[in-house]
Amino acid sequence: MVEPISINLKSRVRSDYVYFLSYRTRWSDNDQYSHMNNSIYYHLFDSIVNTYLIEQCGMDPKLSPQIGLVVSSYCQFFAPLGFPQVLDLGLRVDRLGNSSVTYEVGVFEQGKNSPAAVGGYTHVFVESESRKSSKMETETRRGLERLHKL
Amino acid sequence: MVEPISINLKSRVRSDYVYFLSYRTRWSDNDQYSHMNNSIYYHLFDSIVNTYLIEQCGMDPKLSPQIGLVVSSYCQFFAPLGFPQVLDLGLRVDRLGNSSVTYEVGVFEQGKNSPAAVGGYTHVFVESESRKSSKMETETRRGLERLHKL
Amino acid sequence: MVEPISINLKSRVRSDYVYFLSYRTRWSDNDQYSHMNNSIYYHLFDSIVNTYLIEQCGMDPKLSPQIGLVVSSYCQFFAPLGFPQVLDLGLRVDRLGNSSVTYEVGVFEQGKNSPAAVGGYTHVFVESESRKSSKMETETRRGLERLHKL
Amino acid sequence: MVEPISINLKSRVRSDYVYFLSYRTRWSDNDQYSHMNNSIYYHLFDSIVNTYLIEQCGMDPKLSPQIGLVVSSYCQFFAPLGFPQVLDLGLRVDRLGNSSVTYEVGVFEQGKNSPAAVGGYTHVFVESESRKSSKMETETRRGLERLHKL
Repeated sequence: MVEPISINLKSRVRSDYVYFLSYRTRWSDNDQYSHMNNSIYYHLFDSIVNTYLIEQCGMDPKLSPQIGLVVSSYCQFFAPLGFPQVLDLGLRVDRLGNSSVTYEVGVFEQGKNSPAAVGGYTHVFVESESRKSSKMETETRRGLERLHKL
Repeated sequence: MVEPISINLKSRVRSDYVYFLSYRTRWSDNDQYSHMNNSIYYHLFDSIVNTYLIEQCGMDPKLSPQIGLVVSSYCQFFAPLGFPQVLDLGLRVDRLGNSSVTYEVGVFEQGKNSPAAVGGYTHVFVESESRKSSKMETETRRGLERLHKL
Repeated sequence: MVEPISINLKSRVRSDYVYFLSYRTRWSDNDQYSHMNNSIYYHLFDSIVNTYLIEQCGMDPKLSPQIGLVVSSYCQFFAPLGFPQVLDLGLRVDRLGNSSVTYEVGVFEQGKNSPAAVGGYTHVFVESESRKSSKMETETRRGLERLHKL
Repeated sequence: MVEPISINLKSRVRSDYVYFLSYRTRWSDNDQYSHMNNSIYYHLFDSIVNTYLIEQCGMDPKLSPQIGLVVSSYCQFFAPLGFPQVLDLGLRVDRLGNSSVTYEVGVFEQGKNSPAAVGGYTHVFVESESRKSSKMETETRRGLERLHKL
């Protein structure tokens, strides 16, 4: 289980995160309550994490001998968001082990310093064929260390 | 924050859940690692919870004066699932307050008694117009009590 | 371009289709107009087609030397559908070539003989590695011939 | 049925479109063939169309007395796209009636002048409550005229 670190995640601000990407929301992100559905946040977490792994850690989802499997995820929702907003996502690493990493993502409305939602997940790195746990590759680890905030 | 109850969720079995529905997976549920993407589990949680609220608690998402907003969610993943499997979902209530409820969902491969994933979320009930927190309606509460396992 | 056959697709009935599966809708299938979003129909088309290819034509998306790529798709919408309905999908083949096939799917509300939507797409079969067009494999062709209605 | 205009859509270039937005792809947009799933293009069509209606035509999906319902849609796929690409979408109007409009969207890889896919759909405008067809509002019509290319 991801045990979110003991601080109040609602008190996060932009400077608590290291790597940022902006995502345009989509019409179908809104459910019939006219706000972004809770599941969509996890699609965005996956997107910023994997973009970072591909662009900053040398991973190639099709070719790399190692992939990250999600073993646990969580999200806390503080304020509604929704289409057609453009959202800023901030990424950090909360825990970095030998074969696993716990990411945290802050989801920000543009122009706001406090997040509308904070969540994340734990990746366990495995051999892509056997899906057996394996020590994180050096290039991956170096990339993730740059996101690690204590 | 949802604090998952202290038992090991991996030890859950079918009889820990009260209400069941089967969901056919979809082609696009699988991501490029050829298994069901972690975000899809949350779409399924939303689906069994809201089906129960509509069919067993008298809620109508378009007309009811009260709706449930997700304030926190989590999932633990124990084994991969994927298209074209048909999945059995089991629903229970872990905590029932005056204006909030914490659901837990077990996701089972057909024919297996141990879940491939367990997760859930907390709904806070609010007035549908003002989105202010309000005491759960009696019919909703009665329906949710039937799912409450201590 | 898929040129839909010249009949009025709105006049289709259940007996025009050969292979049927039922799909439970999901909460997030409904957009903020409280009906199933138009994009979701294409997710369902993909699901019944690929289930048929896997279960009736011996295809394995991970291992088969040949895969089907969608080159053109279309849908006509006659009546709204939405969560929490369970939908019946019917599949047929309208055209069967040496390396391509055009599927048609009727989407039915349970208990109704006329479809709420009819659509489909054309698969061109390609070698999974090179993605070059190739003659349909014999087992695939035999499976698809069973869906072919003139 | 949308009858796509008789030109070869594959010959479209950026200057055939009027209004552009860029969309970051998401991890789950790729299916297990490691390219953007065909259904996702329709999510993007919906997104650029509705962003234009909201930002340039004064529509408010929650409050407007009139909404657009999709009655027919289509897409042709010329080249694969996929996560983590950022895509440029171009929007134009092919036909503009009294109560309906047919949009066309070109999906471009960044830096390319030829589209990877072209598709679109027809909106029929209806009263949001009764869902009966109604004459397009003046502000909507003026906005859509600016996208109309003969």
